[in-house]
Order: sequence, then structure tokens, then C-alpha cells
Amino acid sequence: MAQYNEKLSEEKVFKDPVHRYIHVRDKLIWDLIGTSEFQRLRRIRQLGTTYLTFHGAEHSRFNHSLGVYEIVRRIVDDVFKGRSEWNEKERMVSLCAALLHDLGHGPFSHSFEKVFHLDHEDFTRAIILGETEVNAVLQRIGIDFPKQVAEVIAKTYSNKQVVSLISSQIDADRMDYLQRDAYFTGVSYGHFDMERILRVMRPREDQVVIKQSGMHAVEDYIMSRYQMYWQVYFHPVTRSAEVILTKILHRAKQLHQDDYTFKQNPVHFYSIFKEEATLQDYLKLDESIILYYFQTWQEEEDKILSDLCRRFLNRNLFKYIEFHPANEEMMKLLELRTLFKKAGIDPDYYLVVDSSSDLPYDFYRPGEEEERLPIHLQLPNGDLRELSRESEIVDAISGKRRTDHKLYFPMDLIEDMSSRKSAKKKIIELLNIHK
Amino acid sequence: MAQYNEKLSEEKVFKDPVHRYIHVRDKLIWDLIGTSEFQRLRRIRQLGTTYLTFHGAEHSRFNHSLGVYEIVRRIVDDVFKGRSEWNEKERMVSLCAALLHDLGHGPFSHSFEKVFHLDHEDFTRAIILGETEVNAVLQRIGIDFPKQVAEVIAKTYSNKQVVSLISSQIDADRMDYLQRDAYFTGVSYGHFDMERILRVMRPREDQVVIKQSGMHAVEDYIMSRYQMYWQVYFHPVTRSAEVILTKILHRAKQLHQDDYTFKQNPVHFYSIFKEEATLQDYLKLDESIILYYFQTWQEEEDKILSDLCRRFLNRNLFKYIEFHPANEEMMKLLELRTLFKKAGIDPDYYLVVDSSSDLPYDFYRPGEEEERLPIHLQLPNGDLRELSRESEIVDAISGKRRTDHKLYFPMDLIEDMSSRKSAKKKIIELLNIHK
Amino acid sequence: MAQYNEKLSEEKVFKDPVHRYIHVRDKLIWDLIGTSEFQRLRRIRQLGTTYLTFHGAEHSRFNHSLGVYEIVRRIVDDVFKGRSEWNEKERMVSLCAALLHDLGHGPFSHSFEKVFHLDHEDFTRAIILGETEVNAVLQRIGIDFPKQVAEVIAKTYSNKQVVSLISSQIDADRMDYLQRDAYFTGVSYGHFDMERILRVMRPREDQVVIKQSGMHAVEDYIMSRYQMYWQVYFHPVTRSAEVILTKILHRAKQLHQDDYTFKQNPVHFYSIFKEEATLQDYLKLDESIILYYFQTWQEEEDKILSDLCRRFLNRNLFKYIEFHPANEEMMKLLELRTLFKKAGIDPDYYLVVDSSSDLPYDFYRPGEEEERLPIHLQLPNGDLRELSRESEIVDAISGKRRTDHKLYFPMDLIEDMSSRKSAKKKIIELLNIHK
Amino acid sequence: MAQYNEKLSEEKVFKDPVHRYIHVRDKLIWDLIGTSEFQRLRRIRQLGTTYLTFHGAEHSRFNHSLGVYEIVRRIVDDVFKGRSEWNEKERMVSLCAALLHDLGHGPFSHSFEKVFHLDHEDFTRAIILGETEVNAVLQRIGIDFPKQVAEVIAKTYSNKQVVSLISSQIDADRMDYLQRDAYFTGVSYGHFDMERILRVMRPREDQVVIKQSGMHAVEDYIMSRYQMYWQVYFHPVTRSAEVILTKILHRAKQLHQDDYTFKQNPVHFYSIFKEEATLQDYLKLDESIILYYFQTWQEEEDKILSDLCRRFLNRNLFKYIEFHPANEEMMKLLELRTLFKKAGIDPDYYLVVDSSSDLPYDFYRPGEEEERLPIHLQLPNGDLRELSRESEIVDAISGKRRTDHKLYFPMDLIEDMSSRKSAKKKIIELLNIHK
Repeated sequence: MAQYNEKLSEEKVFKDPVHRYIHVRDKLIWDLIGTSEFQRLRRIRQLGTTYLTFHGAEHSRFNHSLGVYEIVRRIVDDVFKGRSEWNEKERMVSLCAALLHDLGHGPFSHSFEKVFHLDHEDFTRAIILGETEVNAVLQRIGIDFPKQVAEVIAKTYSNKQVVSLISSQIDADRMDYLQRDAYFTGVSYGHFDMERILRVMRPREDQVVIKQSGMHAVEDYIMSRYQMYWQVYFHPVTRSAEVILTKILHRAKQLHQDDYTFKQNPVHFYSIFKEEATLQDYLKLDESIILYYFQTWQEEEDKILSDLCRRFLNRNLFKYIEFHPANEEMMKLLELRTLFKKAGIDPDYYLVVDSSSDLPYDFYRPGEEEERLPIHLQLPNGDLRELSRESEIVDAISGKRRTDHKLYFPMDLIEDMSSRKSAKKKIIELLNIHK
Repeated sequence: MAQYNEKLSEEKVFKDPVHRYIHVRDKLIWDLIGTSEFQRLRRIRQLGTTYLTFHGAEHSRFNHSLGVYEIVRRIVDDVFKGRSEWNEKERMVSLCAALLHDLGHGPFSHSFEKVFHLDHEDFTRAIILGETEVNAVLQRIGIDFPKQVAEVIAKTYSNKQVVSLISSQIDADRMDYLQRDAYFTGVSYGHFDMERILRVMRPREDQVVIKQSGMHAVEDYIMSRYQMYWQVYFHPVTRSAEVILTKILHRAKQLHQDDYTFKQNPVHFYSIFKEEATLQDYLKLDESIILYYFQTWQEEEDKILSDLCRRFLNRNLFKYIEFHPANEEMMKLLELRTLFKKAGIDPDYYLVVDSSSDLPYDFYRPGEEEERLPIHLQLPNGDLRELSRESEIVDAISGKRRTDHKLYFPMDLIEDMSSRKSAKKKIIELLNIHK
Repeated sequence: MAQYNEKLSEEKVFKDPVHRYIHVRDKLIWDLIGTSEFQRLRRIRQLGTTYLTFHGAEHSRFNHSLGVYEIVRRIVDDVFKGRSEWNEKERMVSLCAALLHDLGHGPFSHSFEKVFHLDHEDFTRAIILGETEVNAVLQRIGIDFPKQVAEVIAKTYSNKQVVSLISSQIDADRMDYLQRDAYFTGVSYGHFDMERILRVMRPREDQVVIKQSGMHAVEDYIMSRYQMYWQVYFHPVTRSAEVILTKILHRAKQLHQDDYTFKQNPVHFYSIFKEEATLQDYLKLDESIILYYFQTWQEEEDKILSDLCRRFLNRNLFKYIEFHPANEEMMKLLELRTLFKKAGIDPDYYLVVDSSSDLPYDFYRPGEEEERLPIHLQLPNGDLRELSRESEIVDAISGKRRTDHKLYFPMDLIEDMSSRKSAKKKIIELLNIHK
Repeated sequence: MAQYNEKLSEEKVFKDPVHRYIHVRDKLIWDLIGTSEFQRLRRIRQLGTTYLTFHGAEHSRFNHSLGVYEIVRRIVDDVFKGRSEWNEKERMVSLCAALLHDLGHGPFSHSFEKVFHLDHEDFTRAIILGETEVNAVLQRIGIDFPKQVAEVIAKTYSNKQVVSLISSQIDADRMDYLQRDAYFTGVSYGHFDMERILRVMRPREDQVVIKQSGMHAVEDYIMSRYQMYWQVYFHPVTRSAEVILTKILHRAKQLHQDDYTFKQNPVHFYSIFKEEATLQDYLKLDESIILYYFQTWQEEEDKILSDLCRRFLNRNLFKYIEFHPANEEMMKLLELRTLFKKAGIDPDYYLVVDSSSDLPYDFYRPGEEEERLPIHLQLPNGDLRELSRESEIVDAISGKRRTDHKLYFPMDLIEDMSSRKSAKKKIIELLNIHK
């Protein structure tokens, strides 16, 4: 059985644009990075369809996973080192969980999971515990070790400090993705003083708290997150691409169920469509596979499938208007559906309401949900205070859920309705778009 | 016929991490970006296999093409504007050529072109002049306009100032890729004061010259380029991946010629293998298609093809040693080939010399080749002097070709030769690698 | 009479770490920079005593003034150019006012003005209108021109758009100092996307409004400002140095009034002490003069003056505790004063309450004060909305005045009270500081 | 006697724009920073008159000294820690020498030392060994400790690794100033990958060597240095200010020797003029004192002194032309001197040749001078090779001394020679300047 602290003969480094260098000294970590399951993350983008809005956002989950690992490594090696509650085993569980926390993500996760009723967290667990290269490497430490790593990711691990590092309101995951996504998109949000936050983190009983002197750095981090969500993650153009992607997957599934004969048979999708995908089936999927099918499907006879695929690949996206799902607007939507149908445009695929609060977004207030633990400040006298009590900025935005609904539609198809002038006019009127 | 200066009703901007914003005011440019041929560049990485060495280098040629366009736009709109020799037409030819200069690149261009005897410049020209969306947009300006744009890229255009902007020793192409590749890899090289260089550029007869006061900024640019070539572009690990990629393509082609029955038939490659690819065949190729085949080929019965695909996807690359292709070493190579064959490792695929001077690299001295024009400094009195006469740093490195040869081999297969201990020992000895 | 648009034969540039380059094309601007009154700003630090907390903050008001000029230049030359309400004269008034807006600042302005009842805005006006080199340069444009520039700075100028650029809740002054002070101190706050803000500014009737699409950039700017105030400008250590500085000036004035014989006669201060300073007297003052006196005063016989000067120069500052000026604490303060007196430590100089809301700080809400105009967003339909109605973050912090009171005292003197053990114990107890 | 490793109860940090944070854990270092001799460095600019060319360059030697300390701290705590040849004492000697290496610098060092025949290194030693606060703090470690620190700075210390860290061709001093001066001036040179260089440093016998894999980072560092020297440190405008400064000091000294009666008696200079300055006299000098005198001297009756002071303070500098000190040009210079004299402009003060090789500049080749040790690369097999043998870029510039001579003169005075038209014409002709 391997030791927790088996080291490489020489430290390896990865040049990283966000953290400058990522340092690997542990043989176990090095070997995990080399597994096929981890390398697969190179073929899954960190931000799904965001690259169609921010062209720089082409970075992969491989990138991000190394970044989360590096942040946790700095915390455990520089900040927590030497504290009595930390030992080599807790250190190694933390590092592995950080590195592997996103392992189960599929291609364009968000849409994919929604259409096929999958959960990337289930797959993360399955990869860690199943017959995989990752599992074999983890097993070298001990028969129970994979299970412990999986527990950290599932937030059920006994040492809550370790859980906190990977998933809490101020964890390594968020600290990496905010900075990384800001770097690759090029937006000016997303910057905060991580070095300072790391310096003021203190492990304490079953959580990690922040020294009060670091409060402003934490405020800045929370504001960065707020801005990144509304400026980048929920950008309406990104969601337009997401809507089309979702509809492509729906259509392909529907056609398959209807025994449509594909020119390019979707063999990679068979078990997914039936919702019986094995781990092996799932691991074969990545974004090049998806894009391969989208490309070939451009030439399918089914007009909807081929049109949607062309739109996605050539970034010919849907336009959108604000939509408030109250009574009156719902009536309008029904009317639009009828008009679309009459015009031969299937509203199930071409008239779509997307609400951004569907996307994972959480505000900073301790609440009903068990797992959303508050951020605690540690006062000079040792007392703890929940962050929003000390910070008026955080107080202002905590607990306020903000949702945004948009109605998406293909402007070009509407413009082409030249043979149906009155319907076209009515649609344009209802959508309140001025040509 | 459209006008050269048809403007969008409102300027569009792309957020760009390198140039902050990319500004589009011309309807023609906006429509070119929207063509399927240009959007295809999103699926072709700027730096081929470099992402396997520098994980940040996942950016596409789409990114870079916008960047080159933006640099040229700044030059023509801010620096050259109002000069008598510039007019709306020259401006528009310049912008289109900048945007489209890399349009014909295929997936993993370098290897692809070598194996299949293709030339991306031919395809760039073919896309601009052929039956494509790009051509249709360009035609709006005039029947000859596509040809003029193609001539700029081919360096045969009559206005040499326009040619200089796109391809010379200090052109927008290089200025963008050095900065962009540095940004995405995260290396500290690649930075120079582009704002200053743009300010000291002066159009002059058939070239663009640099005011002498900007000499040091140009020196810095040339040093950046030098460092980027040796630190990033010619990195031996990247070349290892390139070697494997090349061998995969060779093997697939060979198997096809030998009438091997593929589980996954390489339909996308048929015409390529026969070197009869049409423009339509070529445009269907991109890196997701290639990676799709590599994935499925992992399960082919041909051991070499499946092994090489697994290596590429899982980054299980070849190791390397320095290799000096002189007599003695060539003898050693022959001996190694024999030993490899005996051990059942096909040396045609597993023992490969790669020389980095094969890659496009050019030093800064006017020379025999017609098209390598020198950089000229314009002295205060109006005289011109070739850069290396004024700059001792540039003088030091100009005209000196540097080549680097490496011998690549699969260390793991050699280590596994347990049944052939003496051959293994001999191989290890010849490779001078210490286990 | 000179023309508004007399240009330099060649554009001059200053390398600037914040805006990269500062561009000067107008002869008038170049000549203003060359006046002795403007060059004097090199000898006055932008952030007073802040360099004793953040050692990088050694930059001068000269720096900042060029920065404000450059921002206004970009707005008028790039954003407002060609609009009917803008002409060469309004442009030149704006540029001059931007450059000169801080011209009247004295050395360590804040303390200086408080002790000697001066107002830097009065002096700015006096320099522009008086017998100075600056006035002579401005007069070249026209006899009324200096007055117009002074009116912009005094916010009484008729064209309110011009006034807005220089002084409003989102003006060039603030945009420069936030970025500049962040750069020189090295803090991670102070960054926002100024390029975007400049692009969404729109002159409109008597103000400059912001297109709604730029709201988040403005939010970010306001948060930067908030953080800079509390993290940098009101830093308690900076205020400790400010307290000592103020007390030095008070003491010197007092001694002068008491006919104390200085070893180094404070000739530069005579008229200042009497509050009869002429413009010429005032212009002779700068921070090297002040530091010269502080140095020589270290050797004065007056113990208080020499001690305070030594403290300031050697950064041997006062310690502090939180102080809430309510009844109970005021009683404690009186008790402390009595104890200090008994111990021979003059509480007028050594026991000081400093409140940071004394410092210039303003929140973002339209209010009673005439001149605090709100920031208006311009909706797509042309309507205006006050910012805090659209932005929940801004709403959260607008109108909330925050004050911070601290009590400063010399810890070292208290520690040295070895002959008065019980008084010392009592003082330590009242200050609630644990030795 | 104090211990080498007495720690502060809590680590102190300084926010630093270049290194992000400067960390102080040792009580000794904290106390040294608090001494009046070290605080004095806040009043001496790092780059002398450079702020008159690059307005951002207002940073002090205090800044730089902390930076050098931090780099050495990182090396000894992160890189060298645990190596057998390093112990607590060598660590502390290194840190103190790093912090104090520039302690003896006077105001505007370069000119000051030249005019008054002083040497800042002598004063550094004197402060460390004399009756100073710094000496008292160092003595706490041991009676010999100050001497050891002084020896490191004088390069005579027995442990050459320690000496190397502070003064060698790739030392912490240079690494800090290149980055810091680039940061504050805002130029794009001066950047290199220090993190990488620190990682490849290896202590070895009597030097610190660089692992071969770090060669390109070192090349980049050397190129940065080269560019900073010619772009920033030897900038001709900076030298113009330096020339005027030197002449002011010369004039004041001359007047004092001639028993001229100063309105403002230069008491701070008496012993300096006589070249009999004590340590106490010297320590009273800083740049505010100098600027105080320059200000008051603007009103002296001596025309030359007052004119030169006004020029310096108001940045009304001398113009310059290239000058090649060969025979013909020397004759021209003599002729110019004669013409200047006739015109009543004293050529001793107004016609000055400045050569930049006077300034401290050294190339990278081992040579005759004992102390210029080469940079050695450590090959994988352990052999050492001198850098320029491996790097063709370094080879190109090593050992090549470059000098630059300029002739400085007051253009405005020449223009004012209206009563002496023919002399004026002749001067303009000889200077080859076109009006």
C-alpha cells in the first residue's frame, strides 16, 4: 500500500495563466492527472456555450480542475500546515477531492443533464468508485480511500473543514473559476485578492472561518461573483446558444424514439436516449463527439434537426426579448405559438422561454437548505459573526434571488414569412420588435 | 453593389482578453464573421497540440483572426487615416485580408499538411474565390474584390503597404499571435509595447517603415518572437504530440490503402487519403471531427493505430533525447531500428526524428528569398536603414538559423520488454537513458 | 490672440503607468504643463501621509493631474467629437480645467487647510486668475478664458456637460484617482472597466448620462470607490500620521504666537500663521519645504514640537482604539485627559479623536446638497432613470453615511510611565489595551 | 543577546505593488525598518532625476530596499531552506544585508557623489558600524554581527553564496530594481519571470548557479536589463536634469569658497563643501533638504545659481545633440566655448558634455575585474557552463561597452541672443540645430 506522502523525484510544474504555476510534488496527484478519465476533461469546455458570446472562453474543465487543486494545495501546505487537526491523510483527501471534483461533467453539461436526466455528481462518484484508472490510482492508498474522496465531493465527509475547502460559499472551486473565467473571457470583473483571503482563512472546528481583517477582500470576492453571474454566466446570447443546443438534443432523442432513420446513426447516444447509459458509455462522450454529430446532422433530412445544428455551428442564434411569465404574457405566448404553428415554424423548438434562475446560482445567506453554510468572520476576541451582519454590501445582496426570463425566437425565419404578411405583422407586434 | 463604407447602425464590439475590445463598424466585416467558413475557425486550435504542454493554449484561430483584424483596423483607422495614399477601398481590402488570412487552415494544420500534401494557403485562396459564403459576401463590393483580397494574402497585391500590414517581418499577424499565445499559455515572454510600434509605423512607398525612435520597441518585439519560438512553439513535448499525431494519420492512410476494414469507416478522410479532396470535403474537417475518429479508432483492431490514438488522447506521449544527425548517430539510429523491429515495435511509427527547423521560423535578415523583406528604420533626416545595422541585438540573431533535432520513442514500451532483456539493455544504452 | 486649436508641430507623449500614454497635441496644454505653478505639483503628494501606510503611494498630484487631463481628452476627442454641442472652445475649456483642477493644493492639504483655515479651491482660482505663468498662458486664448476655466472648476460654468466631466459623481477626477491610487498602493481594489464607461457616456442637455448597457461597469466603479475609501483613504495608520502632522502645525503656530524663539525660524510660515498668506507666499510652499522644517525642528528645545517631528519623520506613530463619542466614552476621555496631564503628557497633542467622516467622502444619492447630482442611466427608449433605482447594489450603499471614530495616543510614552505605575495601569485599563 | 530567530508575535505584511506582499516575521528586521536611518530612505528617490522624464518614477529607495529584502527572504526561506550549508545565522546576515544594502545613499546620489567626492558605499558601512540606531539593533544579535552584515555588502564576506544573493550579475538588487523601475515608470521592458529564476537557483560552493532549464528566463532578465539601461536609466532628458543638478552643486560650492554671501546660508552643506562631512552631517541630508535650498536659491543674487535652480525646479532643461569626442568635435567645442563666453553665457555651467558610460553599467562577461563573476548554468550532468557560451543572445551583447556622449546647452538663452546676431547664427550652425 502506498504512502500518503510518496513524492516525485522532482517536483513537476504546469505553467498556468491564472496561478502562474501549478506545483505537483505528490506521485498520486501526478498519476491521477495522467488517467484517461482526467484527460477527458480537456475535451469539455469549462463554460459550455459561453465561447459563442466571449470568444476567449474556450478553456476546458481540465484547466479549472488543476486550478482548484493548486488553491487547495496552497491552503493545506502554506496556511494549514502544522496545525494539529491536519495530517498527511487529510491533506491527500483534500488534494484528490479538489482535483477530481468535476470529473463527472459531461459535454455541455447543463443542457445535457436537463434533457437526459443525468447528474454529473453521480458520475463523478461513479468514476471515483467504479472500475476506472482513477479508482485504481486512488486504491493504492487504501481500499477505503476512493470512498473518502467521493464523500468529500458529496459533502458527507466527516471532517467538515475538508468539505469546506471544496464546497462552501467561499471555496477553492469558486475562487478558481471566478478568476479563470474572468481571465479567459477578458472581462474586468472576477478579480479579488485571493492571496489575502488565503492568508486570513482559519480552520476552526467544523468549518473554515475568515479573520475579520480580511472582510473587505471577501466582500470584493462576493461582488466579483455577483458580477460574473450577471455579466458572463447568464449572458442572454450564451443562453440563446444553450436553448438551441437543448432543442437539438431533444429533437434527436425524439427522432430516435420515432424510429427516424439517421444518415449518421447516433450510436454514442443510444443508451443515453434510453436513459440507460453505463459509465463506459458516458465516458466516451465529450464535446468533440457532440460536435461531430452536430456537423453530420446538418445534412439530415429532418428539417428541424439540420436547421438547429447549422444554427449552433454557425452561430446563427435566436433573438430574444424580456419575458415576464405573468398571466397576460402567458396569453401572448399562447397566441404566438398558434401563429408560429400556422406559419409552419414548430413552436416547441423555435419559441422558447429561458429563465436564468434555473442555472446554479446561490446567494449568501444561511437559510433553509442544509448545505448552504454561512461565511463566518472571526473577531479579534475569537467570537464568530456571520458575514452579512458585518458587511452592509453583502447584507444588501444576500438572500435576494434574482431571476431573469427571456423569450427566444428565430428572427430570420420570421423575416422570411413573406407569403404570410398578416401573421408576420402580428408576430412582430406581439414580440414588440421593430423592423 | 455595396459601398466600401457601409456601416452598421451601431458599432459591435467583442470583448477580447488581448486587445480589450474588438470593434466592428463595417457591415461587410460583420457579415464575414458570420459565415460558416469563418465560424469553422472556432473548431481549429491556434496552436495545434501545444495545449498538451501548456494547458491554457486551447484558444482557436477564430480568436487570433479577430485579433489580426483589430490590429490592422487600428493601423488604418488611427495611424494611416488621412494619408493621401489611403482610401476606403485600400482600407477595406486590408481589413478583409487581415480577418481572412488564416481561413484555409485545417485541423492540426502542421501535421495534416505534411501527411496529405496539402497547403492551407491554397485553401484560403480557394475559399475566398470559390462558391462559399465568404465569397458571396465579398462579391457584394465588386466582382474583382475577392481576387484582390486573395492577392493581399498571397503577397502579390499591387499596394505593397497593404501586403506589409498582413505579412512582413513586423506584421499584424505576428503582433497578434505573440501576444495572444503568451496570454493563453501564461508565459512571461511575448510582451512588447505594441501601442508604441503602431504609433511609429509610417507608410512609405512600397513598404511600412518604423521611425527610428521606436527601434527599442521593435527590438523587444523581435526578442519576444525569438523566445516564443524556442520556449513555446518548438517545445519538445508539443512536438512529441505532433509526432504521434502525424503517425496516426500516416497509419490510417496506410491501412486504407491496404484495404483494412475499419470499424469506424473514415468517410471524412477518403478523398484526403487519395489526395483528391474538394473544397467541400476540406471544409467539413475540423478538430472535433479528427478527435472523433481518434476516439473511435482507439478500439480498432490494428494495434498501432489504436495504441497511437490512445496515446494522443490520454497524453501518454513519447520521450525524447537530443539527436545530431551526423554519421555516427545515423548508424546508431539504424541499429536502434533493427533492435526495435526484433522487439516487435515498428520503428516506422515508434522511433521518430523530429527537427524543429521544419517548422515555420524565420530570422531577421534580408536575404535570398524574395519575400523576406527587411524592417527599415526611418531616421530623423528621412533616410532608411535596415534594422540590424542599427540594433546590435537584432544583428546578433539575424540570419542565424537554429535547428534542433530530437529522437522520439515510447519509453513505456521499452520498459515492458521484459522478455528481451539484452535487447532492452542495448536499446537503453544506445538511447543513453538511465533507468 | 491664439487659436483654440493651435497644435504642436509633433504630438508629445508622456509614458504613464495607468493610461499607458498621455497625449498632448495642443500647444496651450503643453505650455501650461511647463509653468512653474504646474511643475510645483510634482512636490506635493497625491495621497498625503498615505505613503507611511502603503509605501508605494509616493506619487504626486502632477501625475494625477495629467491623468485627469488624458481621460477628458479621450472623452472629448473620441466620444463627444462631432456632436453639435461640442466645439473647439468647449473642448479647450474642458482640457484646461481637467489639467488645472488641483492646482491650488498645498502640501499635505488636508491637515494644512484644517489648521490654517485655507481652502485649496480658493487658491486654484487665485492661480488661474492671478498674476501667474498659468494665467499668462491662458490669456493667450482670450481675456475671458481664465475666468471660464475657473468657472468650470467652481462648477458655475454655463455648460453643465463640461462641469460634469470634471466634477460629478462619475467624473474624470475620480476615475483617474481610483485607478492611480490603486496602482501605486498595489491594492487589488480600484479596478473597473473605464474603457467601457467612456464608450457608454452620452452628453445630454445639462449632464452626461450613461447608457443602460453600461450599468454594471458603473456599479463596479462605485464599488471600487467604496473599497478604496475604507481600505486606503481612511486607513487608521494613515490617519495616525495625519493626526501627528496636524499637531505639529498646531504646535508651531502656537509657539510662534507665544513668541517662542525658533532655532530655525519658520519664515515660510509667518504669513500662514497669521492667516494673511499672499498667493506668492502660498506658492512657495510644498512638501520639501515642510519636511525641511520638520527635520530642523527635531532639534528645537520645545519638547512637544521636536518629539512630534521625530515621530512623523521616523514613522513612530500613535496607536489607536475604536472610539464611540457617546456619553460614557466622553467621560472616559475626560478621565484620560486628566491622567495624561498628571503624567506630564499634554493631552491636547497626545490624545486625539479622529473621525473619518470629516474627510471628503460622498455617497451616491441625490440629496439636499445642490451639487451632488445623481448618475442617470439612459434606457433604450431614451428615458432616464437614476442609477440606484436600477442597481440593487448601488441602492444598498447609497445615502448611507458611515463614520469611524478612533482615539489616538502614544503607546511608547505610556509604557515609559514607570514612575507612575498606578496612573499607567489606569490608563491602560481605560484604553482597554493589553500589554 | 538576541536569537537569530526571534519572531514577531504575528507576521507583519507590507502591501507592495511589485511583489504583492512583503512579509516580515523576524523581530530584528521589523526593528531595522523602524530606525531613523532606514526611514530616511523614504526621502531619497530610487531613480534621482528620472521623474522629470517618466513622471511615475517618484518611488523611493525605501520601496526598493524592502523589495530586495523580500526577494532574498523568498530565496532563503523557500529555495535554500533545509540545505546543509544554510543555517539561521547565514539567513539573518542575508536578510539584513539585503535590507540595508542601499542605506548610505545620499540625495540624488549620482551627482552628489561626483561633485563632493563621496561614496555611498562608505556611508552604508559607516551607518552599519557607527553609532546609529541600525547598529544598535544589529548589535542585539552579537558584537560582530554588524561587521558581518557590512562585509556582505562590501563583498568580502566569507560565504560567497550570501554575497552572490546581494551582489552578482543576477542578484536580488537587480531583480527588484528592474521590475520596480519598470512598474513605476510604466515602460513595457523590465518584465521577466522572476518566479522561475528563483526556482532554478542552486547554491553551489562559492556561488549561486542556475539550472540550465532556466536559461531562457535568465536571457529575458538580461535583455530587460539592457533595455532598461538604454530606455530609462540613460535617457537623455534625465541626464539633462542631472547635468543641471551637478552644476548647481558645483556653483554653490564655488560661491561658498569665494565667500559669497548667501541669502539662505547653506548650513547643511558647510562640511560637505569642505569634504569633511561627519556621519551625522551626512544623515541630515535628503532630497527635501536639497529641494528646500534649490527653492530658496532661486532668489539668490548670483545669476547662475538662481537660473540653474529655476531650471531644475520648473523643468526648463537643457537641449542636447549627439557628440563624438574626437578631434574635430573637440575643436568645435572649444569654438563654442569662446562664442558662449563672448555672449556672456558661462560655458563651464552652460555647455556640458555628458557621457553615459560614466553611469554604472556593466555587461555580462567574466573579465579583468575581480568582482564581476560570470553567471553559471548547471547542466543536467552537474557540469557548469558560463552563460554566454550557451546563449547566443547573451553572447552577442556580453563584453561590449556602449557609450553615449551628448552635448547639453540652454536653447532658450541662445535664442535670446538677439543683440548678437552673428554669434547666435554661428552657434546655431555649430550645434547644427535648425530653428
